[in-house]
Amino acid sequence: MASKAEVGAVRDFSADHRWLSINTATLRKQQGAEVPLDRIIDQCAAHGIGAISPWRDQVAAVGLGRVAKQLKAHGIGLSGYCRGGFFPAPDLSGLRAALDDNRRAIDEAKTLDAPCLVLVVGALPGALEGKAAYKNLARARAEVHDGIAESLRYAREVGMPLAIEPLHPMQAADRACINTLEQALDLCDELDPQRTGALGVAVDVYHVWWDPKLKQQIARAGRDRLLAYHVCDWLTPTRDLLSDRGMMGDGIVELRKIRAWMEGAGFDGFSEVEIFSQLDWWQRPGEETLATCIERHRSCV
Amino acid sequence: MASKAEVGAVRDFSADHRWLSINTATLRKQQGAEVPLDRIIDQCAAHGIGAISPWRDQVAAVGLGRVAKQLKAHGIGLSGYCRGGFFPAPDLSGLRAALDDNRRAIDEAKTLDAPCLVLVVGALPGALEGKAAYKNLARARAEVHDGIAESLRYAREVGMPLAIEPLHPMQAADRACINTLEQALDLCDELDPQRTGALGVAVDVYHVWWDPKLKQQIARAGRDRLLAYHVCDWLTPTRDLLSDRGMMGDGIVELRKIRAWMEGAGFDGFSEVEIFSQLDWWQRPGEETLATCIERHRSCV
Repeated sequence: MASKAEVGAVRDFSADHRWLSINTATLRKQQGAEVPLDRIIDQCAAHGIGAISPWRDQVAAVGLGRVAKQLKAHGIGLSGYCRGGFFPAPDLSGLRAALDDNRRAIDEAKTLDAPCLVLVVGALPGALEGKAAYKNLARARAEVHDGIAESLRYAREVGMPLAIEPLHPMQAADRACINTLEQALDLCDELDPQRTGALGVAVDVYHVWWDPKLKQQIARAGRDRLLAYHVCDWLTPTRDLLSDRGMMGDGIVELRKIRAWMEGAGFDGFSEVEIFSQLDWWQRPGEETLATCIERHRSCV
Repeated sequence: MASKAEVGAVRDFSADHRWLSINTATLRKQQGAEVPLDRIIDQCAAHGIGAISPWRDQVAAVGLGRVAKQLKAHGIGLSGYCRGGFFPAPDLSGLRAALDDNRRAIDEAKTLDAPCLVLVVGALPGALEGKAAYKNLARARAEVHDGIAESLRYAREVGMPLAIEPLHPMQAADRACINTLEQALDLCDELDPQRTGALGVAVDVYHVWWDPKLKQQIARAGRDRLLAYHVCDWLTPTRDLLSDRGMMGDGIVELRKIRAWMEGAGFDGFSEVEIFSQLDWWQRPGEETLATCIERHRSCV
């Protein structure tokens, strides 16, 4: 454990969990079975959770209006909305469909009063299904650039900040071809040079903990660009590229140190727990997962 | 497939395989069983392979002198020797043991007349066994810095270039905490500012294909620093973080484009095939794997 002097001052999370947000993917499966979002929201409310970040498919399954009403009734806010993105496509109609879909995602985020729409930008189209339509990362990155530029126009109109989430390089082929914070911030600087707050980043420790330039780039991002902060842990060994994330404290990520960098740069928002864990947490009761999130938020994050 | 104009001119590999090297990990297992290095060398000779890159444990099992003699008899050279590194340790005696071991690796590389010793630098000590002795990436990186600096002294004396291999960020916790070409070259610039050729990098497409700064950093490296070039392919999906590498052409890596960047920067050495493939190629007959390496070298690399 790093000493306080090493990591710098951070907000004290030990006394309560007011700054804890639950990304609802963490509770998507409980004891191996899919759980609907309305049930997850009730569980969060019962544990005094103040904010969540839900996924579009979870919201759609219950109904947007119903979710909005339920959240309001419980006094639960959002720390983000998951997710827009997946811009690259093999042809023009695919590119247009992606833009339309992002517009709908922005509208939904607005309805739910989210502080930002998180963007998982996409990569080689078709790669997620094992059949890349083309092998050209530069082309995918250009399509992402254009897709964000176009979506940003509408997002600005309605006042919904877009948060680019750089994904771990192990997901560069199939999920997101923006893979470092530096790359994401270069794009922010290009598309929003005035730092209006309309475009920024979601920093997920799982994706960026390894980056030798992480501290430097978090400082570069600054308060205007740091729109969301996601936590979990990196397990050794990691048995799956997507869904073997660890509970905070169970892996090797220097959580306190990274949060100190975030807060040093001006971030003062929620710490959002996002754990995909087919092999472990998704097999446990949701109450156990939630209680552990709260305990680790207070002791490890 | 990228057009010739896009990728720039490259050496023509289509007519023969004189520039093909086989990293002997590719043939370590055949039809599921371990195969000794002397047998692998005979197989390579039978296929007209001009260079290999053997692993220390494979050499030790057969005997260093015997391997040297066998290679000479076949007229097979080395494109590199795998591997030194793993510098970080929880205590001083561990750090010293790593330095001693790297000295032995340098001596072996010299005996085998290798053009360079490849360094997989290590990361959090113990993480490979699932129990990190400490969680401090900056400390591991400092220990790597010091370990390379110390080993470089001896390597210079005996004239054995050290090639730092940046590993994919998914291996940053347990195998190597140098994870981008930029980071590796920063270290080279610091420890060998005169670009003497004593310190450089091994560029393995599997580890670096995703990097948005790859082209720029290969150009920065230049001929003096580009000591080795490894190829294979990135499969979608990738089912294992270590041993699910693909045969060239079976994945999404833009092999021709990256080789053009390498050659544009002055690299004119071997293209070394290194495929860890527990689920596929290691289950096949070695002759099939070798024949496929040759065919893909001519058609895809």
